[in-house]
Amino acid sequence: MFHYFTPQRYYNTLGVHPPALTLADGDTVLTTCVDAWGQDASGERVTQGPNPMTGPFFVAGAHPGDTLAVSLDRIAPNRDWGWVRTPLAYNTVDPDFARTLPERDRAVVRWQVDVAAGVAMLDSPQPRLGALTLPLSPMIGCFGVAPAGGEAISTATSGPHGGNMDYNGFVSGVTVYFPVFVEGALFHIGDGHALQGDGEISGTGVEISMEVQFTVRVIRHKTIGWPRGENADFIFTVGNARPLDQALQHATTEMARWLRDDYGLDAHEVGILMGQAARYDLGNFFDPAYTMVCKIPRRYLPK
Amino acid sequence: MFHYFTPQRYYNTLGVHPPALTLADGDTVLTTCVDAWGQDASGERVTQGPNPMTGPFFVAGAHPGDTLAVSLDRIAPNRDWGWVRTPLAYNTVDPDFARTLPERDRAVVRWQVDVAAGVAMLDSPQPRLGALTLPLSPMIGCFGVAPAGGEAISTATSGPHGGNMDYNGFVSGVTVYFPVFVEGALFHIGDGHALQGDGEISGTGVEISMEVQFTVRVIRHKTIGWPRGENADFIFTVGNARPLDQALQHATTEMARWLRDDYGLDAHEVGILMGQAARYDLGNFFDPAYTMVCKIPRRYLPK
Amino acid sequence: MFHYFTPQRYYNTLGVHPPALTLADGDTVLTTCVDAWGQDASGERVTQGPNPMTGPFFVAGAHPGDTLAVSLDRIAPNRDWGWVRTPLAYNTVDPDFARTLPERDRAVVRWQVDVAAGVAMLDSPQPRLGALTLPLSPMIGCFGVAPAGGEAISTATSGPHGGNMDYNGFVSGVTVYFPVFVEGALFHIGDGHALQGDGEISGTGVEISMEVQFTVRVIRHKTIGWPRGENADFIFTVGNARPLDQALQHATTEMARWLRDDYGLDAHEVGILMGQAARYDLGNFFDPAYTMVCKIPRRYLPK
Amino acid sequence: MFHYFTPQRYYNTLGVHPPALTLADGDTVLTTCVDAWGQDASGERVTQGPNPMTGPFFVAGAHPGDTLAVSLDRIAPNRDWGWVRTPLAYNTVDPDFARTLPERDRAVVRWQVDVAAGVAMLDSPQPRLGALTLPLSPMIGCFGVAPAGGEAISTATSGPHGGNMDYNGFVSGVTVYFPVFVEGALFHIGDGHALQGDGEISGTGVEISMEVQFTVRVIRHKTIGWPRGENADFIFTVGNARPLDQALQHATTEMARWLRDDYGLDAHEVGILMGQAARYDLGNFFDPAYTMVCKIPRRYLPK
Repeated sequence: MFHYFTPQRYYNTLGVHPPALTLADGDTVLTTCVDAWGQDASGERVTQGPNPMTGPFFVAGAHPGDTLAVSLDRIAPNRDWGWVRTPLAYNTVDPDFARTLPERDRAVVRWQVDVAAGVAMLDSPQPRLGALTLPLSPMIGCFGVAPAGGEAISTATSGPHGGNMDYNGFVSGVTVYFPVFVEGALFHIGDGHALQGDGEISGTGVEISMEVQFTVRVIRHKTIGWPRGENADFIFTVGNARPLDQALQHATTEMARWLRDDYGLDAHEVGILMGQAARYDLGNFFDPAYTMVCKIPRRYLPK
Repeated sequence: MFHYFTPQRYYNTLGVHPPALTLADGDTVLTTCVDAWGQDASGERVTQGPNPMTGPFFVAGAHPGDTLAVSLDRIAPNRDWGWVRTPLAYNTVDPDFARTLPERDRAVVRWQVDVAAGVAMLDSPQPRLGALTLPLSPMIGCFGVAPAGGEAISTATSGPHGGNMDYNGFVSGVTVYFPVFVEGALFHIGDGHALQGDGEISGTGVEISMEVQFTVRVIRHKTIGWPRGENADFIFTVGNARPLDQALQHATTEMARWLRDDYGLDAHEVGILMGQAARYDLGNFFDPAYTMVCKIPRRYLPK
Repeated sequence: MFHYFTPQRYYNTLGVHPPALTLADGDTVLTTCVDAWGQDASGERVTQGPNPMTGPFFVAGAHPGDTLAVSLDRIAPNRDWGWVRTPLAYNTVDPDFARTLPERDRAVVRWQVDVAAGVAMLDSPQPRLGALTLPLSPMIGCFGVAPAGGEAISTATSGPHGGNMDYNGFVSGVTVYFPVFVEGALFHIGDGHALQGDGEISGTGVEISMEVQFTVRVIRHKTIGWPRGENADFIFTVGNARPLDQALQHATTEMARWLRDDYGLDAHEVGILMGQAARYDLGNFFDPAYTMVCKIPRRYLPK
Repeated sequence: MFHYFTPQRYYNTLGVHPPALTLADGDTVLTTCVDAWGQDASGERVTQGPNPMTGPFFVAGAHPGDTLAVSLDRIAPNRDWGWVRTPLAYNTVDPDFARTLPERDRAVVRWQVDVAAGVAMLDSPQPRLGALTLPLSPMIGCFGVAPAGGEAISTATSGPHGGNMDYNGFVSGVTVYFPVFVEGALFHIGDGHALQGDGEISGTGVEISMEVQFTVRVIRHKTIGWPRGENADFIFTVGNARPLDQALQHATTEMARWLRDDYGLDAHEVGILMGQAARYDLGNFFDPAYTMVCKIPRRYLPK
């Protein structure tokens, strides 16, 4: 079934909030997300940050211990401008260098976003960068399910339930898998970026409101530990933690489990394949929990 | 001037060792490196590990405070097999999962390396992976200059002087820049990998002896803080430290300095460009110091 | 006013739960806490872990931006036995050594707790330790207020709101200060330990149910960033985070702010005093967030 | 045998330097150390920093795989003033707070050191601290043996060989054990502090030149992994690494090995004893490698 959903309210935590809509296994939703500050397609600030979530969506038939698959069918900016904070975040550089950086509070610039042309361009040319123009790669910064144990987790951070991972690989065409911790999974989505560098090291992508279409599917009796995903070329796993070392360990462990449990590799094969073919992406190195992604090319997976 | 150099002895530290050869600014060297265990092209173990270094090469005219540019003209395996350790390294996974991994001591397998075909293939087919075959991408695991302050640093680890960075981006065609800490720079090189996944998470690439050709150039009165490099598409910086967070901070800081000092960007422009266009690669997540690489696409650099 | 409070239900998160009792500024409460698994004074398991909380207590007059002072008037075991998990936690040792440790799941032993004699003694003598006997030092493992931003945070972990800090300095006679994030502060308390080593490195203290008496006080318009405390000899600050480095940075920053804002020290004086007189205690190195405590002896504080 | 030794030169690395004096097992040495900047008892700068080492002392009969015991018989300042850097080090606080700290370069103040009275007093009274006066607790900041593998390690940092641990527990009466990596061990010593807070968080103790008397002893065929020590009340182990988490893991592992190998505890007993009786001290949180110390009270050790 296909749902058009217009959000009436937004949440700043992922938790057990009243469902905004109930979906069946296989349903598709077309909806919108406001930007990280709560500004909608018209630029009006309709709610408050950080990262207001559309949803949650109750997925009938999803029970704790299951996995929720979410296919990102289409992610598209629904207005023609975004914004970024400019200075590097203080935690992303050496402590003495952080002392040389500008104050972050008011240091925000706009980008023009041209979906048809597929580019974003600095709204005001800069002294040396000029009207820097970068290719669009619209992505979802924050999405996931209600966490375990009755927690409600801020959309500023992330965990096994997903959340504010700020990984620029969460683009159209990707399917993401989340562990289900509560009845109905309670899927939340928001925080669109028109594009973003690795690590979100200035603390923002090109922040923008979005039109989003996604399809949910329940995988019964399949339990995973961390978000997983796949695109045309890779399967991947996501670890969210601080320090970055631990995020990497979570992602690596989750991939090793996947290869062992679903592809039947023994521990030596896991090490051979991952040791020589794994690729890692840096999600974010800004939020309270950092994000690291471990990828394996599909073409090397056993049939 | 072009030098054919046949190493007579090898070093397991980067330090102030007697120069093996003196080079002039602009000279090119064709030489060989043994593998991480000291095995040469014939498979004979001619020296001991870890990561025996060919060199050091004294570069006339290189003084402390200068930069040494090393162009990796050609890196090619000079035998038809390599080896890997199979299990994931214990530090790369969650502590409880590490308890499920096999012992690493004797868990080594061979790969056939076919330079003409450009592939490496598992020598003994594995139960599920079969004769896994991966594209060659020959790289240098460990190279760099004598460190500052009279230190001699093990080839097991890395620092501002380079060393055992195990970054799979150090391939033919790349130019690497090292800070010069001592007269003549004292360049060392070794530890070839026929290919390697990101992070060297099993503790090895496909370890192999190499024929290496490189060209040195001295950049007088140019002082850098960490290794830098460039290839056809990117300029990049390298941070080596534990935890991975600090490696990332070093690499990010070095890139910010580069963009500021050589490209004239102010701190807001640095943040805009890096925040939206930086890419990070994981060098190694195995050695005592981890390695993180920060890259900026050339096409977005100001002219 | 003095309240006898018998808990009817318990919570496994610190969050905006319905108040169990409303207190006025200055009120004292005498109540009980079950142990980390939900076992009460009689040993009956009346609720589920982890770390069930008594409360929350709504403190009238406490508003966001205020500080809540909680004096731990008396903490006393209310049964004659406790339990510990025996093996070291895997994350507290080097990854290769973790592989040599026993499974933790069923590795639990009892201690006899003799409040009159002030000691705990192993219930079953061990081969070499015999009937190890240690002095009691009853403490609160987990307590704090409802967090900011609508979060509900598991009692397994900690943050600026307090929570599962597992610091063995939280004993009778200590006053603890928490930031107030919600109306009424919503104070929770539980997870008693008859004693505990630094770091809670086996994942438990001597876990026991408790009788607890505490007094609350509201400090209006006083905003703090992290839990603070004081005892007869020290003032102290508490940082909760992973890695331990960040916990230490939070605690150090909070102490520097305290000395600056309340004692009028300039930044040089802060550095002089802290650099030469600070003492650090390790709270826990087991929970998802670690805890580090920074202390300054009262006798060196300016009058 | 008792040696009076007057240093003629100093080293800024721990490494295989020419022995300054050869000692027999059991010999005692009375010598002097300059301060961290190379200033001697008269205040003259006789060599350069960082942390110039007296020695190295070749201990006859010490072979790789042995342990060198060094008893710190007496550590006493040999001049009447020391110096500290005042601001907190930038890495010891949150990144945004680091931006509020003063520049460190010239921020140095003197302390008067009165050995007879047992106190140090700020030389120039400060606005609020006045003439802060603290009890002396003379300690050695940097000492150890030549490292393994031909390395020469800067006296700015530390490792399994000891080095710049800056732990305020290295005082008179303590015996320290170092792994022996090279023939004769090659013991170095220097970097005295009249006193120091935990963590050396301003980057210095009260830096001072010292008269030092120590006695060496070789323990043949006893191999340890990290420095160990003992005083009247505790046995302790020292881990040196970054992040602090890893320093703690090294110290914890080394203590677990000690209890297992020398006291015969099984893994459950190790966890019981350490979990409930271990104490941790923070050595330094400033140097490239941090230092964490794990202690067990002697009175709980099995006989």
